[in-house]
Amino acid sequence: MREDDEVTFGSGAFREERRKDPSRVLALTDGVFAIIITLLVLDIHVPELSAHEHLRTAIAEVRPSFISFVIAFIVAAMQWVGHRDLFTLIRYTDRGIIWLNLLTLFAVCLLPFGSALLSRYYEDPLALRLFGLILIGTSVARTAIWAYATGRPSLIHEPLDRASIWSGLALSVFPVAIYIIAFAIAGVSSQASLAVYASGPVLYFIAITLLRLLAPRGSAERQFT
Amino acid sequence: MREDDEVTFGSGAFREERRKDPSRVLALTDGVFAIIITLLVLDIHVPELSAHEHLRTAIAEVRPSFISFVIAFIVAAMQWVGHRDLFTLIRYTDRGIIWLNLLTLFAVCLLPFGSALLSRYYEDPLALRLFGLILIGTSVARTAIWAYATGRPSLIHEPLDRASIWSGLALSVFPVAIYIIAFAIAGVSSQASLAVYASGPVLYFIAITLLRLLAPRGSAERQFT
Amino acid sequence: MREDDEVTFGSGAFREERRKDPSRVLALTDGVFAIIITLLVLDIHVPELSAHEHLRTAIAEVRPSFISFVIAFIVAAMQWVGHRDLFTLIRYTDRGIIWLNLLTLFAVCLLPFGSALLSRYYEDPLALRLFGLILIGTSVARTAIWAYATGRPSLIHEPLDRASIWSGLALSVFPVAIYIIAFAIAGVSSQASLAVYASGPVLYFIAITLLRLLAPRGSAERQFT
Amino acid sequence: MREDDEVTFGSGAFREERRKDPSRVLALTDGVFAIIITLLVLDIHVPELSAHEHLRTAIAEVRPSFISFVIAFIVAAMQWVGHRDLFTLIRYTDRGIIWLNLLTLFAVCLLPFGSALLSRYYEDPLALRLFGLILIGTSVARTAIWAYATGRPSLIHEPLDRASIWSGLALSVFPVAIYIIAFAIAGVSSQASLAVYASGPVLYFIAITLLRLLAPRGSAERQFT
Repeated sequence: MREDDEVTFGSGAFREERRKDPSRVLALTDGVFAIIITLLVLDIHVPELSAHEHLRTAIAEVRPSFISFVIAFIVAAMQWVGHRDLFTLIRYTDRGIIWLNLLTLFAVCLLPFGSALLSRYYEDPLALRLFGLILIGTSVARTAIWAYATGRPSLIHEPLDRASIWSGLALSVFPVAIYIIAFAIAGVSSQASLAVYASGPVLYFIAITLLRLLAPRGSAERQFT
Repeated sequence: MREDDEVTFGSGAFREERRKDPSRVLALTDGVFAIIITLLVLDIHVPELSAHEHLRTAIAEVRPSFISFVIAFIVAAMQWVGHRDLFTLIRYTDRGIIWLNLLTLFAVCLLPFGSALLSRYYEDPLALRLFGLILIGTSVARTAIWAYATGRPSLIHEPLDRASIWSGLALSVFPVAIYIIAFAIAGVSSQASLAVYASGPVLYFIAITLLRLLAPRGSAERQFT
Repeated sequence: MREDDEVTFGSGAFREERRKDPSRVLALTDGVFAIIITLLVLDIHVPELSAHEHLRTAIAEVRPSFISFVIAFIVAAMQWVGHRDLFTLIRYTDRGIIWLNLLTLFAVCLLPFGSALLSRYYEDPLALRLFGLILIGTSVARTAIWAYATGRPSLIHEPLDRASIWSGLALSVFPVAIYIIAFAIAGVSSQASLAVYASGPVLYFIAITLLRLLAPRGSAERQFT
Repeated sequence: MREDDEVTFGSGAFREERRKDPSRVLALTDGVFAIIITLLVLDIHVPELSAHEHLRTAIAEVRPSFISFVIAFIVAAMQWVGHRDLFTLIRYTDRGIIWLNLLTLFAVCLLPFGSALLSRYYEDPLALRLFGLILIGTSVARTAIWAYATGRPSLIHEPLDRASIWSGLALSVFPVAIYIIAFAIAGVSSQASLAVYASGPVLYFIAITLLRLLAPRGSAERQFT
């Protein structure tokens, strides 16, 4: 039962509220993320033993699908936490935010394919680049929502000062820069590219922790997860 | 915890409220849409390389499933946005709305099959027609909800004037007309039929933008996404 | 943000409220139903054409999976509507309701398998019986929740009079009776058994419409969907 | 529509509320559990009959996948009920709880694989151990959330007394102890190990019922499901 059910006047204003209400956008997004992080488990098949084979050796076959699940899980979890942080800022949705969010979900949906490809062909520059493109897509779409929302004070909970807007933007652009580097060096050294991808989450955690520590009390930067 | 939990009297009225509350209808619908837009990614399999084959050539195999995912995503996203717009109008659900909504979900569930069929046999009139039938089904079901709800003022947030009811109806019927044309010419020219399907989203965006611009401030037409 | 967030005293009472709050039970249930009604679409595969075969003949191959999807959809939709009706009555959950609801979900989860089996072997008594067992399971579990909740006034929104409790119980037991008949005659005539299963939804709609028409204004029976 | 929509001042405080609001964490978690408990049904395939074969004998083939579904369902249901109990205590989330919860979901996601492996190779110590590791993972992650939250009074609904904290901790650690025993004896006797796993839910129910009965009225222990 919703807040407005008890109010019998001015329901026009309430329809307006409901139209701008982000709750269904969040419900769809959480549903997509829940599916994404459980989807790749479907690919971890129980191995069938051939004659004289031991489960101990056969279980090794599931390693690539397990690694691909771990990669997709970590990346999707980071994206979800980032999405949740972003939408604590956004009070109302409009047409632009809804379609930018659908664009984010489009890129997020490709994460399982990207990580499955990477876990299978981690030495191939093409696999490394496609994985990078998907990650760049998710981060760019999220950055677009941040830029769009912070530029429209009527959509956000409280006006942000310039410094907070820029540090939020920097934090969104930061992973993009890492992924572009990994993308660029994929042709030169696949191992170096892999290492840069792997360093992404680590560097991001360090950056976010630094921002939280350095930011003045109560500012937006302290609110990142 | 719900609004009514603190109220200890008149719980009969609250049960009545809860019976008419659309929240579980929306939860089921958002869940179905979340699954639909992520479902087809399962069909994008990582290619297995045969001897002397390069990933660059093998990756081409995933093109049809990728296109089918893109089609299903765009169509489902448009349907979801339309559904969200529609239910900002609807304040209460009754038996009719619940079953009409389940009918909509039935058609929506067939979208992944329709777009997979289309991406594989885009030159076959039958595939084009089945895809059209599914799209017509989703739009007709949604139009039926609009007609049903606008004819029952007790179910909606605010009474709509005749002009708003008709322009909302026109906007719902509009895609149906496009899909019927594409369906009809599928036998004559599959390419023309495909082009009409592809023009659907574009024309819809133009139509909705025009309606938003032309409509008087505060009218229902300005609230479409 | 929840109701209780603003209250700074007596949070013990609020934890108690939250513990009895059915919202997560409903979220899990709606999630399971959303997956169940979309799951069988995965089984409708786009046919691969052999040489000289037309899509028109090949598409016939998907008929059994399509029928199985339709059966599962209708049955699951009816179960969901019944579940929603039931939980408009229930205000609070306790240990018993949570586990009885999980039992319902267990039976609901088997629906896709049951309808796939039925659509493939609709002439085999065993398939008809297994399908019946699953349906009986879902209905018995739901009846158990009705009996459990109506016997505990502290869990429901308003005390029900004896007549409402019994007619609600009758409506829950009614489908079980139909399914038991279909189960029993499966060995004698598979066609008669199929006909009884098919008549189930029709008879249920008639029964519910009669109950709604005959029931006095404002009584619980008028609230069934 | 959320509580804070009507408030036009002090929205900074509301953003703070929203940032700490556990609702999206619960939505993601319920989505993951809904998928997990329905996922393994996908593995129960309708058998294809070979010549002269009866459905009665062919249906036996689905037994391992059915058993694996039953195991995963029971284990996941218990984990979900435990998670729900835990989060009735937690009023606010912070960075630590979000990531510990994601760690729990990671282990939960592996449950379908673990039970599929167990149902197929229930005599193999390795399968028994991997199944045990996954269960230990889920329980340890949940115990970590309990320890983390009870140590931070600002996150929970009401301060817990030492006895409640310890009995809650004991109840979380209890299943871990059972699983470690089953894990340890897997190499000695696979049947004994299986029996210990199977006794887990039974013992847990007994322990929880005892705690509920012995605990003083209104204490946290009476609130376990």
